[in-house]
Amino acid sequence: MKLVLIRHGESEWNEKNLFTGWTDVDLTAKGQNEAKQAGIWLKEQGFDFDVCYTSFLKRAIHTLDIVLANIDRVWLPIIKTWKLNERHYGALQGLNKSRTAEKYGEEQVKIWRRSFSVCPPLLTADDDRNPALNPAYSTVDKEDLPLGESLKDTIDRVVPYYENYILKDMQAGKKVLVAAHGNSLRALVKLLDNLSEKEIIDVNIPTGVPLVYEFDDKWHVVKKYYLGDDAAIKAKIDKVAAQGKA
Amino acid sequence: MKLVLIRHGESEWNEKNLFTGWTDVDLTAKGQNEAKQAGIWLKEQGFDFDVCYTSFLKRAIHTLDIVLANIDRVWLPIIKTWKLNERHYGALQGLNKSRTAEKYGEEQVKIWRRSFSVCPPLLTADDDRNPALNPAYSTVDKEDLPLGESLKDTIDRVVPYYENYILKDMQAGKKVLVAAHGNSLRALVKLLDNLSEKEIIDVNIPTGVPLVYEFDDKWHVVKKYYLGDDAAIKAKIDKVAAQGKA
Repeated sequence: MKLVLIRHGESEWNEKNLFTGWTDVDLTAKGQNEAKQAGIWLKEQGFDFDVCYTSFLKRAIHTLDIVLANIDRVWLPIIKTWKLNERHYGALQGLNKSRTAEKYGEEQVKIWRRSFSVCPPLLTADDDRNPALNPAYSTVDKEDLPLGESLKDTIDRVVPYYENYILKDMQAGKKVLVAAHGNSLRALVKLLDNLSEKEIIDVNIPTGVPLVYEFDDKWHVVKKYYLGDDAAIKAKIDKVAAQGKA
Repeated sequence: MKLVLIRHGESEWNEKNLFTGWTDVDLTAKGQNEAKQAGIWLKEQGFDFDVCYTSFLKRAIHTLDIVLANIDRVWLPIIKTWKLNERHYGALQGLNKSRTAEKYGEEQVKIWRRSFSVCPPLLTADDDRNPALNPAYSTVDKEDLPLGESLKDTIDRVVPYYENYILKDMQAGKKVLVAAHGNSLRALVKLLDNLSEKEIIDVNIPTGVPLVYEFDDKWHVVKKYYLGDDAAIKAKIDKVAAQGKA
């Protein structure tokens, strides 16, 4: 059994180097091309799926739509859940990463971006970035919605969702594709690779590259690999790692 | 309570005037623009939705995707069902409508296109257009899949689906958007407008125009209207009506 994860392609705010979080920005033309290329790789390698999971955020949904169009599987069921949303970046959402680093220091930004359990500055309840004020989350219990999350908080919502839905689908024999975000996918990588809190901080997931996990019949991971060109993947990982610098 | 129906925009085979049926062709650039315009009208008129239904065919799914992007509701749940597919046109799928009219006569084509219970020539089971051989329908009971359908056959799968899922969602207070096809929507129009078998034959639904039904609290239709420019809608209806001519 295989599970394929894909981080959305470049978004309008990746391009501007802003903290995005739950801000619902779309893909750039480059991000659309990354998604298309991911679809071409999946098709060339003979991957197929029974069900797809994604977040409530259009950069992930559109990445998935483009992948499905390119593997000729537009009809597949898509389950959208806020549980796979990016980490909520609280009051940092909308700030430039480099300028935030100049203002607070690279170390503080690295702590906010890369620590395990430190939250960013939280939104106030009346901030119009509060998800409780957004129609997208009108069906979610207000007390479940964050005003800002640590990586730990993100993991604490992603992992139970994975175990209750995605893993159960796989155990029922379904081939699953997940299109999500840097930190919601990091939650899955920590679980699947059995990484420590310290180890996961230095994992950078490249945009728009299919990440394949293969399992044995006891659901242990036996193989993990990216699809695509190794040098291009390395360059993408380095780019993600460099974003927090001044 | 309101229900909004939309027929997909122009497809690659509408443009070529071929019998399409379940052939999974995509939208043309014009069809994408029709879907975008439909989204703009819905947004201008303040329409909003809780759940969307569409078929397994990408011209309807992509119409819905474009509408959702233009009303900023990309996160909405989308339920895809083969029950909302276009009428299956059997062995006519892939034939040019005008040439079919020249060969068999306009009257025969009108009977195939516009009669209530006459089937087109059926596919043979080994024809590669047989849905039972298509991975999209691998989860459907083989005996439910058609080799060709009359309008009656299409109605007989669409109406129960509407009553069991779409109507129930509306009764639960959900605002529903349906993106589908000329004949699957005609099935709903016959039901909602309480039309005879004879009357439904002359109903032509324009592409890419939102059709709004308003209900009273006993689920009787109290109002029905298209959104958009009247003259453009009339021209689209006339174009659909003219397709079967030699």
